[in-house]
Amino acid sequence: MTEVSLSRPAATTEAELEIVLAAASAAAAPLGAFRPSERAAFLDAAADALNAAAPELVPVGMRETHLPEARLKGELKRTTFQLQLFAQVLRDGSYLDARIDHADPDWPMGAPRPDLRRVLEPLGPVVVFAASNFPFAFSVAGGDTASALAAGNPVVLKAHSGHPELSALTAAVLTGALTDAGAPQGTFAVVYGTAAGREALTDPRVRAGSFTGSISGGRALFDLAASRPEPIPFFGELGSNNPVFVTEAAAAERGADIAAAFVASFSAGAGQFCTKPGTFFVPAGSGLVEQLRAAALPAAAPLLNQRIQDGYLEVFQELAGHPEIGTLVQGQDPLTDPPSPTLLLTTAEQMLTDPRSFQTECFGPTALVVEYSSEAQLVPLAESFEGQLTATVHGTDTCPVQELITVLARKAGRVLWNDWPTGVSVTYAQQHGGPYPATTASGSTSVGTAAIGRFLRPVAYQGFPPHLLPEALQEANPLNLPRMVDGKR
Amino acid sequence: MTEVSLSRPAATTEAELEIVLAAASAAAAPLGAFRPSERAAFLDAAADALNAAAPELVPVGMRETHLPEARLKGELKRTTFQLQLFAQVLRDGSYLDARIDHADPDWPMGAPRPDLRRVLEPLGPVVVFAASNFPFAFSVAGGDTASALAAGNPVVLKAHSGHPELSALTAAVLTGALTDAGAPQGTFAVVYGTAAGREALTDPRVRAGSFTGSISGGRALFDLAASRPEPIPFFGELGSNNPVFVTEAAAAERGADIAAAFVASFSAGAGQFCTKPGTFFVPAGSGLVEQLRAAALPAAAPLLNQRIQDGYLEVFQELAGHPEIGTLVQGQDPLTDPPSPTLLLTTAEQMLTDPRSFQTECFGPTALVVEYSSEAQLVPLAESFEGQLTATVHGTDTCPVQELITVLARKAGRVLWNDWPTGVSVTYAQQHGGPYPATTASGSTSVGTAAIGRFLRPVAYQGFPPHLLPEALQEANPLNLPRMVDGKR
Repeated sequence: MTEVSLSRPAATTEAELEIVLAAASAAAAPLGAFRPSERAAFLDAAADALNAAAPELVPVGMRETHLPEARLKGELKRTTFQLQLFAQVLRDGSYLDARIDHADPDWPMGAPRPDLRRVLEPLGPVVVFAASNFPFAFSVAGGDTASALAAGNPVVLKAHSGHPELSALTAAVLTGALTDAGAPQGTFAVVYGTAAGREALTDPRVRAGSFTGSISGGRALFDLAASRPEPIPFFGELGSNNPVFVTEAAAAERGADIAAAFVASFSAGAGQFCTKPGTFFVPAGSGLVEQLRAAALPAAAPLLNQRIQDGYLEVFQELAGHPEIGTLVQGQDPLTDPPSPTLLLTTAEQMLTDPRSFQTECFGPTALVVEYSSEAQLVPLAESFEGQLTATVHGTDTCPVQELITVLARKAGRVLWNDWPTGVSVTYAQQHGGPYPATTASGSTSVGTAAIGRFLRPVAYQGFPPHLLPEALQEANPLNLPRMVDGKR
Repeated sequence: MTEVSLSRPAATTEAELEIVLAAASAAAAPLGAFRPSERAAFLDAAADALNAAAPELVPVGMRETHLPEARLKGELKRTTFQLQLFAQVLRDGSYLDARIDHADPDWPMGAPRPDLRRVLEPLGPVVVFAASNFPFAFSVAGGDTASALAAGNPVVLKAHSGHPELSALTAAVLTGALTDAGAPQGTFAVVYGTAAGREALTDPRVRAGSFTGSISGGRALFDLAASRPEPIPFFGELGSNNPVFVTEAAAAERGADIAAAFVASFSAGAGQFCTKPGTFFVPAGSGLVEQLRAAALPAAAPLLNQRIQDGYLEVFQELAGHPEIGTLVQGQDPLTDPPSPTLLLTTAEQMLTDPRSFQTECFGPTALVVEYSSEAQLVPLAESFEGQLTATVHGTDTCPVQELITVLARKAGRVLWNDWPTGVSVTYAQQHGGPYPATTASGSTSVGTAAIGRFLRPVAYQGFPPHLLPEALQEANPLNLPRMVDGKR
């Protein structure tokens, strides 16, 4: 028996899962009954505990994911910042969208308006499927957990098989902090194994699911959630190609800078970001292709785990073997473990003959460079894509390609101008989502403060006397919330 | 050939549907590009035209649905008010949830924050399935159409087979008004027949669906929407029992008034409201059952159409034939067409043995009265229900049954205190939705101004210069919108 197998958590059994789900279900009412500012304290406590545990957590993450120390330290900081930002959202309270309509006998609908008051309330237990590529920020204590807890829901976290020990360690820190801060028992638990995850998602006590991962895995879980006797919302982030379009004017103005920045973006984290720019449209004759051919690609870096290495090679070989795709530039060992980065090459004319065969997401250190011969091709090329997390234009203010931007805004959740999609900032206005297959719920985001909205549902109270109303809706506004009153904010 | 078959629209053919979908798809970009205040003018024009056409519309509705003139006139007013209220929502602009984060090099996440701006944008063409029981308010120009158009989406309306001529007439008025007001061709179209509706819902150009109707019909469409290669959101309102709980104190204080108001509510519109109180919990020994037994139930009234009459009798006979359910009071001819109203009777003890067999929605003039022997039964009874549109408590301020209210708020989208669920007001704080099977999307509402949110999706713009941003996000705020700026509203 090796050391690894000793400390690797075993798959959660059915009996263990039943205990977890029963505890989550029992925790839903008490957790939801805390004031938002009280739940904020839970999140702050979790952030503090995770920050304090960084020296323990980061080395385990490095060993399990092959990610470097600086990256993991930065990611942990992002993760704890996210918990703190949701605490701030709770203290602000506008996320509750509290609305009060006073009774109005003259309401112009033709019938008197009753006293109606509406507020967002927690959904109930949420099962969160952790991602492989962000062992902190999209994992045990990541954005889905933070937003679901902030909304007042117990979380059952299905750990990713790529970093089980880190998951167990993070879960222990998180659970300890929540318990010490006074959160109900059952507020958070971690489970292991595909079977436990599927079982949890189909359990009647679970009221929503979230996921970050592959199209095939995410679609299977989406289908499970939708085919339940009582379907539940499932917020899956699946796949994205993140096309980048360089206009002729931009290439002429600053082609070399754009080429260098593209190489840095597509190869960051060994290409294992959901926002990696997977397709790069450049004008023929601009010299950009030549600059890329001469670029020094980064050295080979080990991928997160064997499954990702295998999956990368499979898709890479499919793309590289495409009859209309050639190799632009690659490192010494593109097919080994670790694989050297590669840039593939095709033309717009070729892509337009069968676009989707060129657009498969390749999770790892490769991207496809597409030479176009006329800017008139950019709109049809943009139209040829499925739903995306991001789409980017590098242009100049004098030649703004407005129609291209309009099409990309229909295809993607985030559109960038003269910037790069990797490095997703956690902010109030962030949108990390997009039409299928980027996500299964394009009306939502999994990053940024709006992510809390996924795990809430509205309830209206009609005709209630003040003392029986939830605090958020009481006339005296004891929570001091921003509210809409009689249609005015 | 009869007069009816002459004026009854034929089922939409595949070729006709293709024209409709192509036009809707082509209209999406231009319709979405109008300023909200410009789309508001379209809605106002539609409301005016429908009001003006009332003398033509109402008689056709009376003939097709058997609903009385006063009801249909009132419903049409509600419908045009709804269009006007969404126009007001558009002029206010807060529905866009516009958010601006200025670039911040010191953002505490650990990396600089880029300039990020987020706004809600239209989804694209929406297919709306009209309901039978509100031939105006949940039909051609009803709430789903109004909110989808307000959001900037073309609408393909699948007419209900119960009022085809009224649908054609209303669609002609609506289309004419929209065209005259300058809306793009293809903004609205009506189609007929189950096949056309299913075909539209599975067409890749359609981006969302909405529905009001039965659990079986709604679930079939939900499954279609979820099983598309690209799943789309489907906002279905399916079924609800709308339980009402009378406390001992309330029964003692005003039992006779409550009994009379309950009879009026359950039998209103011949019991054909989605918010009809289908189960009425009363304390044994309070005299309420005796008051109901002595009540004069309304006369038999014809149901909306033959299918509803047949469906009513089928469920009614199933309930009336339940071994634990008896008859409390009924009119002369409960099984004929039209059927006399009936109140059925059981006890809490009996219901708790197999709750769901007592809780099937019976769409028509019947309800189940349940005698309970102890208020301790109320919470388990409330827990025994599936998701509901509404749940009601008749109580007194001195005996507030807080736990019951908490459970009901988890089960229902709207909780009422000393009021009745029928008569759904169109307001800012209304919530017409609830956990499955009340709806397929408990995070949304189909009535009230928040209904517009169903048909929007967020898009973030990163790093854009002012002149390339949508007006809603430009620094100068040319639309004068309420916005969140750097986290502050």
